[in-house]
Amino acid sequence: MTEQAPDTTGLFSRIQAIATQVESTMRDDLTRALRGNDALLIEVLEYALLSGGKRIRPVLAVICSSLCGRNDKDVYLLATAFEYLHTATLIHDDVIDHAEQRRNRASVQGKYGVAAAILSGDWLHARSMHLIGSLAGQQGLDIFCGATTAMVDGEFLQLRHVADTTVTEEKYLAVILRKTACLISSTCEIGALFGGGTLEQQKALATYGMKIGIAFQIVDDLLDYQGDTKSTGKRIGNDFVEGKLTLPLIHALNNAGHEDKTTLLNCIRGDRTLDDACVTAKRLMEALHSFTFAHTQATRAITEGLTSLACFDRKTQQEHLSVLEGLAGYVLTRQK
Amino acid sequence: MTEQAPDTTGLFSRIQAIATQVESTMRDDLTRALRGNDALLIEVLEYALLSGGKRIRPVLAVICSSLCGRNDKDVYLLATAFEYLHTATLIHDDVIDHAEQRRNRASVQGKYGVAAAILSGDWLHARSMHLIGSLAGQQGLDIFCGATTAMVDGEFLQLRHVADTTVTEEKYLAVILRKTACLISSTCEIGALFGGGTLEQQKALATYGMKIGIAFQIVDDLLDYQGDTKSTGKRIGNDFVEGKLTLPLIHALNNAGHEDKTTLLNCIRGDRTLDDACVTAKRLMEALHSFTFAHTQATRAITEGLTSLACFDRKTQQEHLSVLEGLAGYVLTRQK
Repeated sequence: MTEQAPDTTGLFSRIQAIATQVESTMRDDLTRALRGNDALLIEVLEYALLSGGKRIRPVLAVICSSLCGRNDKDVYLLATAFEYLHTATLIHDDVIDHAEQRRNRASVQGKYGVAAAILSGDWLHARSMHLIGSLAGQQGLDIFCGATTAMVDGEFLQLRHVADTTVTEEKYLAVILRKTACLISSTCEIGALFGGGTLEQQKALATYGMKIGIAFQIVDDLLDYQGDTKSTGKRIGNDFVEGKLTLPLIHALNNAGHEDKTTLLNCIRGDRTLDDACVTAKRLMEALHSFTFAHTQATRAITEGLTSLACFDRKTQQEHLSVLEGLAGYVLTRQK
Repeated sequence: MTEQAPDTTGLFSRIQAIATQVESTMRDDLTRALRGNDALLIEVLEYALLSGGKRIRPVLAVICSSLCGRNDKDVYLLATAFEYLHTATLIHDDVIDHAEQRRNRASVQGKYGVAAAILSGDWLHARSMHLIGSLAGQQGLDIFCGATTAMVDGEFLQLRHVADTTVTEEKYLAVILRKTACLISSTCEIGALFGGGTLEQQKALATYGMKIGIAFQIVDDLLDYQGDTKSTGKRIGNDFVEGKLTLPLIHALNNAGHEDKTTLLNCIRGDRTLDDACVTAKRLMEALHSFTFAHTQATRAITEGLTSLACFDRKTQQEHLSVLEGLAGYVLTRQK
C-alpha cells in the first residue's frame, strides 16, 4: 500500500466533494440548532468547527453508508455528528494539555478561554448524541456512546502510563484502541448500520475502522517525532516532553543495549535539558530502527483493515471501495 | 406554601427511600458500565457521584413517572441519568470556576486535577444520554439534549453579563431558565413521558419543573448572600466577587436612590476591598428589601408550579402529589 503510488486521480476530488457537502450540512445544522442562542457560543462553535479539519471521520461515515446502499441527504447530517464529537474531544484535550495552538492558529481555549472551551465541547457532545439517536436509532446510540466512554477510559489509561518506562507495546495498543480507534470504528459501523448493511458488512466496516484507527494513532505518534512543525502545527517531541511513551520509544527501550537504555531512561527522567534529551532519544530510536518498526506496525494494521473489506463486491462497489483504500493509504503517508 | 409548616411526616422518609434506591441503581449501573475500565476513572466517578448530593433531580423523575402510572425498576435507572448529567455539569463548572471545594470537601478537580475532571464529566455526559436514549426513546433524547444545549447557552449568556451593571431582571430570568430550569423541567417531562403520561400531563409536569427550577436558582443565588458557609459549603458573596449580578443586586440597582446606586456601582467596580464591598452591598440590598423581593419572586414561581399540577386527580394521586408539593416547599426553605 505504501510502496505503490496510489491512484489519486479523482480520489482526492471525490473526498473533497464529500467534505464540502458535510461542511455545508454542518453550517445548516448549526444555524438551525443555534437559532436564538448567545452570539459568542455561535462564534466559538463556528471557530472550532470550520477551521480546515481533515474531515476523515465524516467522510468515512458517508462512504460506509453508501457502500451499504444509502447515500441520501441525511447521511451527511449523520456524518456531522462524528465531526462534532471529534471536535469536542480536541477542544477538551487542549484545555487538559494547556495547548494554546491547534492547526497553526489559536486553540479554542487559547482564543476564548477555558470556560468557553469546556462549555462548547459539552454543547457538541450533546448535539452529536442527539443526531446519532435521531438518525441511527438505539443501536447507533449504543455504539456511539460506548465509543465515547471508551475514549475517556483510554485517556485515563494514558494518564496512568505517563513517564512509566515499563509500559509495554500491549498497553500502548490498549490505550490507542480506546482513545482513537474505537471512535473511528464506531463511525464506520454506524455508517454501515445507517446504510442498511448486513451484520457481516457492519462488522467488516467496524474492523476496517478499528484497524485504520490504530494505524492513524501510530502515525500521529510518529509525526510527533518526525513531522514538520509547519505542516502539523504541533511542536516536535511534544509527547516526549509530556512523558507520553509511544510506540517508537517503547520499542527502543525494549531493544536497546544496557548503555543505550540507561541513556534513554536518563532522557525520560529529565536528567538533561528537554531539547537535548529529545534529540538524543530521537537519535537512539533511529539507530534502533524504532521508527521503522512503528511504521511497519501501522502498515500491518492498514493491511488487516483492507483485508476486512473482502466481503464487498469489488465489481459493483469499486467507487466506494477505492475511497476506503485511498483513505487507508493517506493514513500511512500523511504529513500532518 | 412558605408560611405554613408543611406536613413532613412520612414525606422526608419517602424521598429518602427513593434517593436510596436511586443510589443503589447507580452503583449497579456504574459496576456494569465500568467493568474492565481504568481504576482511577472508576474512583473519580464514585467520588463525584456518591458524595451526598441532594438527589432532587432523580427523585423528581421517579415521582413524575409514578404519577403518570409507571413505577418499575427501570424508572430508577432513568432517574440516574439526570444525576449523571447534573454531576457532569458540577464537575465542569468547578473547572471553569477554579473551585477547589464542593459540598465541604475537595472538588473533583481539586482532588484529581483538571484532566480527570473534564474527562469524567464527558464520561457522565455520554452515559446519561445513552440511558435516556435507551429508556425514553427518541422523544426523551430530544428533550434531554435540548436541555443540555440550553444549559450551555445559559452559561454563555451568564458570562456575557459578568460585571454588567445594566443587566435587567428579564435577562437574569433568561439565564436561569436556560442554566438551571430547563434541565429540571426536562427531568419532570421525561419522567412523565417514560411513565406513559398524556400530553397534558407531560406539559403540566414540564411547567412544574420549569417553575421550581426558576425558584431553585433564585434561592441558590439568595443563599450565596444569606447562607451559612457551614451548611452550603460555599463562601458567602461568591457570586458578588465573581461579578455575577443576581436578582437581589439587580433589584437594588433598579430601586436605589442616586447616592446608594453610586455606592453599589463602586462596590461592583472594585473601588473597595472585596470583603468591604460585599458587606456594604449586602447592607444596601437589605435596606432596599431586595432579598425579600427575590424571595417573593421565588415563591410566585413555586405557586405557579403547583398550580400546574391541577390536572392530576388529588384523590387517587395524593401520595405522589404530596412529594411534589413537599419538594416545592423544600426548594423555598432549604438552607443549603
